[in-house]
Amino acid sequence: MRIAVDTMGGDLGSELPVRGAIGALDKRDSLEIVLLGPSDLLEQQLDGVVGNKPEIRKRLQVVHAPEIIGMDESPVEAVRKKKDATVMVGFELVRRKKVDAVISAGNSGATMAAAIRKLGRLKGVSRPGIASFFPTLKKPVMLMDIGANVDCRSQHLLQFAVMAASCSRLLHGIDRPRVGLLSIGEEASKGNALVKKTHELLTASSLNFCGNVEGSDVYKGNVDVIICDGFVGNVALKTSEGLADAAMQMLKDEISQTWRAKIGYLLIRKAFAKFRQRIDYAEYGGAPLLGINGTGIICHGTSDALAIQNAVFVAADMVDNKVNDAIIRALFEYSG
Amino acid sequence: MRIAVDTMGGDLGSELPVRGAIGALDKRDSLEIVLLGPSDLLEQQLDGVVGNKPEIRKRLQVVHAPEIIGMDESPVEAVRKKKDATVMVGFELVRRKKVDAVISAGNSGATMAAAIRKLGRLKGVSRPGIASFFPTLKKPVMLMDIGANVDCRSQHLLQFAVMAASCSRLLHGIDRPRVGLLSIGEEASKGNALVKKTHELLTASSLNFCGNVEGSDVYKGNVDVIICDGFVGNVALKTSEGLADAAMQMLKDEISQTWRAKIGYLLIRKAFAKFRQRIDYAEYGGAPLLGINGTGIICHGTSDALAIQNAVFVAADMVDNKVNDAIIRALFEYSG
Repeated sequence: MRIAVDTMGGDLGSELPVRGAIGALDKRDSLEIVLLGPSDLLEQQLDGVVGNKPEIRKRLQVVHAPEIIGMDESPVEAVRKKKDATVMVGFELVRRKKVDAVISAGNSGATMAAAIRKLGRLKGVSRPGIASFFPTLKKPVMLMDIGANVDCRSQHLLQFAVMAASCSRLLHGIDRPRVGLLSIGEEASKGNALVKKTHELLTASSLNFCGNVEGSDVYKGNVDVIICDGFVGNVALKTSEGLADAAMQMLKDEISQTWRAKIGYLLIRKAFAKFRQRIDYAEYGGAPLLGINGTGIICHGTSDALAIQNAVFVAADMVDNKVNDAIIRALFEYSG
Repeated sequence: MRIAVDTMGGDLGSELPVRGAIGALDKRDSLEIVLLGPSDLLEQQLDGVVGNKPEIRKRLQVVHAPEIIGMDESPVEAVRKKKDATVMVGFELVRRKKVDAVISAGNSGATMAAAIRKLGRLKGVSRPGIASFFPTLKKPVMLMDIGANVDCRSQHLLQFAVMAASCSRLLHGIDRPRVGLLSIGEEASKGNALVKKTHELLTASSLNFCGNVEGSDVYKGNVDVIICDGFVGNVALKTSEGLADAAMQMLKDEISQTWRAKIGYLLIRKAFAKFRQRIDYAEYGGAPLLGINGTGIICHGTSDALAIQNAVFVAADMVDNKVNDAIIRALFEYSG
């Protein structure tokens, strides 16, 4: 198993992806990792970090990829112009079967565009999409799509459900994942035209469809998979991130007002740290691209080493469990 | 100024709306309130609560409205069949100029349907909608629409912007409210077809349009008004509520694990209470219906007395400041 890690994509430089890669190698002996980025810089960095750990060093390879795609660049244009961008080089390695998967914390649109350009779509897939794990009071839920497809038809949402259910089944060992459709009320009559039509398709399908779920259900953990178009999914994801950040800031403001509260915080901070870990996306291993003819994981631009490490594990699990074969089979059933 | 309060709409019975109404009367001498619900029950309740407060009691009137519209009922059907439902009686009082506004914590679709049926739309309005206040790190932001209109055209979103900006200007005393368009990236090229078209209309308008905002910007408070279709707005609102509930639950779980954390919590709990107050929707006075030929405020089904009281104040401020006249004038400018 060999995974390529983009070291230049994130907002925080190459150090964290490199440390994440080393963390993954440290925990799983069977892994090899290819680091994508400017080779001079990376080789130098590796000398410093794992120069005295030959067992790790020998499972690390550097592949030169000097170009960076900025967060604000147009994905389609960027992948057309920048042949040597980290994600382009990475998915080319997947195409040539030199690596099994690519991890990137860079421009997600560009990562998706590079994957489609280099690998194409899986047989039967109309629109590849991005799934993401959300923490809940129970097990994490997989929400798809979180931003790749902003104008969808119901047929696309049905395919998202089939793909995400296949992935959830194999990754989380759930026999028949419960599928919910994100809407604005539980009844089948609630929702916009797209959602109502999708409700019909999902009801007629052989998926374990549990009906509509509302925004307030996302964090309850009563379903395993939640389906929505990429515009709605992106708003749900980013609004949640924004609220978590703002709430933490407000809470800090209040705590800093009195000595009593400051002392209380000292006593409580371990519980706080555990709580933050529970809601931390980094724990959940990034957002898998589903529907491409290969394996790719998008990480948040501010991913730390742990997030990269966990994304490597999710990618390895997806390859090991042959998620893509399962998706092709499941879609074939639906196409008749 | 006389405001009608629906006492039967919420999930928690008539006691909280009654207490909210009394709280509002206690704070503002110029107010009168009409309580809508089964008159026997309400008169009995009032005897118990304000029997010894004649100054409050004389500004409280009960109007018999025996029918209740359940949260799961179809709004259009319910208002057609239940002529004596609290919201139908309430907006009939507005129509006959017996009261200035209606507050309800009931079925929001039915409240909107009753308002449209009894009062109609304001001149020039294509689609009335529901605005809601979101807490932020700075001042509250007004987001519209949060669920009344699930399939919108760009022209509808432009009207939401005009209406919400008029309301924000008069309620919050902001000269030129900053208007953001909810999307999945800051650039004008980001978003679905509806949002891109709306971006053009807003750019060409004389509104103080600040471009796209993302879900992560909602709680930052860098704009005064955020525009989106009702499906997206409802998902953003309810996902936020769900996350806040789940996060609080997770934090409690962690705190209950050790004695040290429990003691810390005792020291910190005042700061916690202040924080909860800051993120509590109840502080912000419900969600105004904008575009109807009258004034109505929808409250959350689980509203407490404070939420109802603040909604009464917001309704009174909207009437006092002639928000509807401003909306008609502003829309007239846009229609040429």
